[in-house]
Amino acid sequence: MRTGIWLVGARGSVATTTVVGAAALRAGLVPATGCVSALEAFDGVPLPGFDELVFGGHDVVGTGLVKRAEQLAEAGVVPRGLPGVLTAELDAADAEIRPAPPGTEEGGDGTPDQASAAGAIVADLTGFRERLGLDRVVVVNVSSTQPPAVPHPAHASAAALREALARGERPLPVSSLYAYAALRAGCAFVDFTPSTGARLPALDELAREQGLPYAGSDGKTGETLVKSVLAPMFARRALRVRSWSGTNLLGGGDGATLADPERVVSKNASKGLVLEAELGHAVEGGVHIHHVPDLGEWKTAWDHVTFEGFLGARMTLQFTWQGCDSSLAAPLVLDLARFMALAHHAGVAGPVPELGFFFKDPVGSAEHDLAAQYASLAGWARSVGAPA
Amino acid sequence: MRTGIWLVGARGSVATTTVVGAAALRAGLVPATGCVSALEAFDGVPLPGFDELVFGGHDVVGTGLVKRAEQLAEAGVVPRGLPGVLTAELDAADAEIRPAPPGTEEGGDGTPDQASAAGAIVADLTGFRERLGLDRVVVVNVSSTQPPAVPHPAHASAAALREALARGERPLPVSSLYAYAALRAGCAFVDFTPSTGARLPALDELAREQGLPYAGSDGKTGETLVKSVLAPMFARRALRVRSWSGTNLLGGGDGATLADPERVVSKNASKGLVLEAELGHAVEGGVHIHHVPDLGEWKTAWDHVTFEGFLGARMTLQFTWQGCDSSLAAPLVLDLARFMALAHHAGVAGPVPELGFFFKDPVGSAEHDLAAQYASLAGWARSVGAPA
Amino acid sequence: MRTGIWLVGARGSVATTTVVGAAALRAGLVPATGCVSALEAFDGVPLPGFDELVFGGHDVVGTGLVKRAEQLAEAGVVPRGLPGVLTAELDAADAEIRPAPPGTEEGGDGTPDQASAAGAIVADLTGFRERLGLDRVVVVNVSSTQPPAVPHPAHASAAALREALARGERPLPVSSLYAYAALRAGCAFVDFTPSTGARLPALDELAREQGLPYAGSDGKTGETLVKSVLAPMFARRALRVRSWSGTNLLGGGDGATLADPERVVSKNASKGLVLEAELGHAVEGGVHIHHVPDLGEWKTAWDHVTFEGFLGARMTLQFTWQGCDSSLAAPLVLDLARFMALAHHAGVAGPVPELGFFFKDPVGSAEHDLAAQYASLAGWARSVGAPA
Amino acid sequence: MRTGIWLVGARGSVATTTVVGAAALRAGLVPATGCVSALEAFDGVPLPGFDELVFGGHDVVGTGLVKRAEQLAEAGVVPRGLPGVLTAELDAADAEIRPAPPGTEEGGDGTPDQASAAGAIVADLTGFRERLGLDRVVVVNVSSTQPPAVPHPAHASAAALREALARGERPLPVSSLYAYAALRAGCAFVDFTPSTGARLPALDELAREQGLPYAGSDGKTGETLVKSVLAPMFARRALRVRSWSGTNLLGGGDGATLADPERVVSKNASKGLVLEAELGHAVEGGVHIHHVPDLGEWKTAWDHVTFEGFLGARMTLQFTWQGCDSSLAAPLVLDLARFMALAHHAGVAGPVPELGFFFKDPVGSAEHDLAAQYASLAGWARSVGAPA
Repeated sequence: MRTGIWLVGARGSVATTTVVGAAALRAGLVPATGCVSALEAFDGVPLPGFDELVFGGHDVVGTGLVKRAEQLAEAGVVPRGLPGVLTAELDAADAEIRPAPPGTEEGGDGTPDQASAAGAIVADLTGFRERLGLDRVVVVNVSSTQPPAVPHPAHASAAALREALARGERPLPVSSLYAYAALRAGCAFVDFTPSTGARLPALDELAREQGLPYAGSDGKTGETLVKSVLAPMFARRALRVRSWSGTNLLGGGDGATLADPERVVSKNASKGLVLEAELGHAVEGGVHIHHVPDLGEWKTAWDHVTFEGFLGARMTLQFTWQGCDSSLAAPLVLDLARFMALAHHAGVAGPVPELGFFFKDPVGSAEHDLAAQYASLAGWARSVGAPA
Repeated sequence: MRTGIWLVGARGSVATTTVVGAAALRAGLVPATGCVSALEAFDGVPLPGFDELVFGGHDVVGTGLVKRAEQLAEAGVVPRGLPGVLTAELDAADAEIRPAPPGTEEGGDGTPDQASAAGAIVADLTGFRERLGLDRVVVVNVSSTQPPAVPHPAHASAAALREALARGERPLPVSSLYAYAALRAGCAFVDFTPSTGARLPALDELAREQGLPYAGSDGKTGETLVKSVLAPMFARRALRVRSWSGTNLLGGGDGATLADPERVVSKNASKGLVLEAELGHAVEGGVHIHHVPDLGEWKTAWDHVTFEGFLGARMTLQFTWQGCDSSLAAPLVLDLARFMALAHHAGVAGPVPELGFFFKDPVGSAEHDLAAQYASLAGWARSVGAPA
Repeated sequence: MRTGIWLVGARGSVATTTVVGAAALRAGLVPATGCVSALEAFDGVPLPGFDELVFGGHDVVGTGLVKRAEQLAEAGVVPRGLPGVLTAELDAADAEIRPAPPGTEEGGDGTPDQASAAGAIVADLTGFRERLGLDRVVVVNVSSTQPPAVPHPAHASAAALREALARGERPLPVSSLYAYAALRAGCAFVDFTPSTGARLPALDELAREQGLPYAGSDGKTGETLVKSVLAPMFARRALRVRSWSGTNLLGGGDGATLADPERVVSKNASKGLVLEAELGHAVEGGVHIHHVPDLGEWKTAWDHVTFEGFLGARMTLQFTWQGCDSSLAAPLVLDLARFMALAHHAGVAGPVPELGFFFKDPVGSAEHDLAAQYASLAGWARSVGAPA
Repeated sequence: MRTGIWLVGARGSVATTTVVGAAALRAGLVPATGCVSALEAFDGVPLPGFDELVFGGHDVVGTGLVKRAEQLAEAGVVPRGLPGVLTAELDAADAEIRPAPPGTEEGGDGTPDQASAAGAIVADLTGFRERLGLDRVVVVNVSSTQPPAVPHPAHASAAALREALARGERPLPVSSLYAYAALRAGCAFVDFTPSTGARLPALDELAREQGLPYAGSDGKTGETLVKSVLAPMFARRALRVRSWSGTNLLGGGDGATLADPERVVSKNASKGLVLEAELGHAVEGGVHIHHVPDLGEWKTAWDHVTFEGFLGARMTLQFTWQGCDSSLAAPLVLDLARFMALAHHAGVAGPVPELGFFFKDPVGSAEHDLAAQYASLAGWARSVGAPA
């Protein structure tokens, strides 16, 4: 089951780490640490093998993957020696990376229209699939976070969207333009960012029409992952959380993007969901993101939680998470591609709520408890993957 | 369903907070924060009401409960005004506290023999049940942690134990002597400490013979509670934990007890179980307990975890827990008494593994994942509590 | 040497704790913990005794000091029993608190003019000094932080200020209006907040004309105090600090005030000074303040520092400070009043840079190293206080 | 002023980092980050230049310095590319490393006697000095921590020591044997470990007789460094520290050594000194060291401090230090050698208390406040280094 993974943002840190890691797994150089789909629980589920994954993608950046991998090795994200021994694999993936087509940049001058831009993306996707003889392609958005979508009447239905595009309008945010094109090209779509992606009624309708699955949003890799087990812990012990304040220090490109007050709105919205969902009430505090370039590819989160116990006793829990987002995200990209290939193969159409385990803002699901999400994922995979 | 709760260590901080809290709940002065059995999930399960709980117990300490409650108010464990308005309830419980019978002290001079000591405990328990017209009594050990039991042939079977006692021997550690007497008196038994309690083949056999449930061991109130959600989180994300170092700073009596290198053996053993069980491999680090009297009734735990992600990336999680053990333990004592009354009523005999949710070292269960434990508890309660 | 302490913001938490504490010290109920001027190093310096301090002040709040003290006892800032036994002292201070005169509110409708408002303050101050037969009065601003001053030509000189006031203008921010009135009334002035206070050329000139000392700004009570010893530590060890990110979680009124993006500008400016001064270069990161009402009178600061050692090795220091600002500030208010009384008595005119030890933004000094500031304070006190 | 640095433990991590770093400084490849003696404050003091330092030493380990440097590069202690470009310099130092002479191992079978062992060390030292034409040699002990010395009558005076050695006895702990030989060979001696070293009356007398300086003990590189500024901060603010609990997680060889309960006695003794000295009273808590091999060359310390402010308010400060001991220690070894060369040149005999800035247990000084220590060092260096 040869499966293509088409990365939007294919030369970013997450994408590069994904491609390096898949190649290293294929070569047997590393264990599948961090890959959920490689856990024993999924033995026997007919997922595409790590050696059946083929990479391509779009990016506005021209730096080649070998160079990018060396930068990540310098930063301590991937082992020193790895880029050198995987040059052939990285060059092969690089050869399948296309420049982002005109009309996909944020802002832009309005030319060409989005119908044309979508057409160009579709052509790149179908070319990739056919040239490499792939069974299917999963498009994964790992590009920079974008601000929340500006409402537009064309978002309401597939028909309205088609008409607006036919009129030469530009109704879609960029992430949704990619989702639209992916669905048009017969590809499953995953949004690993908090951008809008496929989460518009028009695109949901299109996915169902096309019999294609989509999943998202916003990969749960660090602070929110921890919250998704701690919040249910408090709830199950009947302890009342009174405040939960999160501070995130981010270096690198992600930090710079999220230092933009418009873009951070998308991120903060998805980061805040778990608490109210799991605790059943609003909580003081909030999530704050600060850009500290010196941290490079690394991230430090500090969360401070005050809670109340029996007879009103006040107590505190703090945690500090020091992680590398690319190292945490990349194996999940592989997992998602494998599970989405399964879903596509099994004919799942529309959102896949059982993949909520991977996301801060799980499309199609209100469940934020990691344990429940895991049980749902494992049950689904075994059931969808069962021989007919 | 009037239910007696007989507390071994009835004037300790946990016991006093339990009695104060039950009285405050009964009087409608406080919400049931921290009480798991009061969660919506247990609505409809026929547990004894908070107003059906009656307290008694054993202790070597003579200070009355009103005085002890005032000390705890001074220490910030219970609200200032509470002891004053609950004097009648506290005095009533105090009137049911008996001095620990001769032969129950640790060490001791060998007189009287344990058969006599057990007889005295049985008499206290049956007197309590009959005098107050209770449907049943749950004995809960909340006394100081004791060192691991010295092996003795009489531990092997109920028959061997009976014979040894008949010969005037002293084969049982103190916590097991109480468990033995509880079972003899027809009471369910809960060990909230890491002491041996009912965990001897002889006592297990006796419980089954008598048709009585028992549960334990070592209430999971702080650091280990957090570990029981974080360890599964790492496992489910396929992240490899490489070291987990825990430091506990304890004030008060608990700190002094656990500064004893013999007693701490029991505690460290139960504290260490969750990691290996949930991660599937041994982990460097260990748990360390230090006595800091200035912390009084409060406790601070710092855990430092190193873990490995994709491609060997090294990351770190730290947490600091600042809690009050009595505030965390007391509502669980109420929960356990309520669930054990249900189990007793339903004819459960032997260990109740479904109560593992409450314990660091769950008797009859190898499950240490808090979410799984909670699901097991909820399912069990609904099933056992269902109308016939 | 009977010394009046006139508190602007006399019913706030800092002021109330100051008055309660001074009364408790006078009554011998507590040790002088937190009072720098009571250290052995200052033995023999002719400071006014704690029993020679008399309190008055201005506030817009009407709640009496006894009530405010009880609220602080409830919040754990002052001991429970204290307000009750100090009622007479608190009532005496309360009797000397005057409503803030018209024209001192922020914003306001422009009536009356600032000359009139200053006149009313002067009258309150001189009335206080004369009625109670005080040797001198120190005015201490402990009111809410105000936004940075709007520039005005009248700030440039005492003459320009006098003329503008004579023309009925309102050139001064409120904190400076109090400083002006204090100096006009022959009182020393201390700004414990980051507001402008006496830091205008016109007021500096006035202080020198009048032979009066002034000091400020922004009491150094928590996070910045720690920074003022850690930053010099890095510098002395030639370790290069690369980022220093501070997060402050504040409850209470202070948190609400500093959640205002205009007011927080003043605070962040003073909080940031120590790093550049002590490290000699700009540092990434910044200071962030978040309002968490649940923390009440308490504050938690988390600082995350990355630094570079020999051969470029990257290392990290984090600290978490959990303090009560009123408890930390109140003894410093007493210290400042005592030292300013000494300065006034000794004829010091203009800023007192040797009091920089107490401040985040020390007027008249670029020294931010706590050890150097302490040495300067101790040397100055012994020298100024030496018998002629 | 060509100066030899003779390292006892010359192939350990600290020593290797020192040699690599000195070579990199000489080659102009790195800035002197972490080198105190390179601060502006010491401009003009006639210290030997980094390019005048020449290395030799003793070790029981045979692995060459190039190999050791590569291991440290792998561990992230020194930059990847550095060992490769400094091969010549490292080989030159390696050629001056001698096997530790018979009789210097801990324990041992009693042959040869210590007089012979000392003679062998002296021969190595004088050979080094003469062969390389050095103006002087500073011996620095950077070997593993040893248990406290067993008392012996020969420690009391130089005469008693000479006699015991002449009788073929073995009265000296190994670190003191090296100190004895260093002094006999006319070399200054520095103890960077908490071992006994020169701190015996007999050796002090010998140093004075020979006109040689010595310094120690136990380089202050991490947790204690932070304590040496925080403890004075509390003292200067009259805040009463009530408990100070330190936990150190150490990987590598140092962690293994200090997991030995006998050796850790020396370390804990020196780590505890600063608090009592600076706070003026004993403090609960203590310092705990745990071995976590996974941390490799890195170390994490967590300190938890409870303190009391005005009116008894209880507050807390925690810090977490994540450092690399070799990176922190190596530049101090260079500093100490430079300052000791100055002291030797200037004729200082006996302990050099002004170097207490570098040590946890400063010989000849009771000062533990880092700021005061720095002032003392700077004053001393300028005075000793002034032209006659």
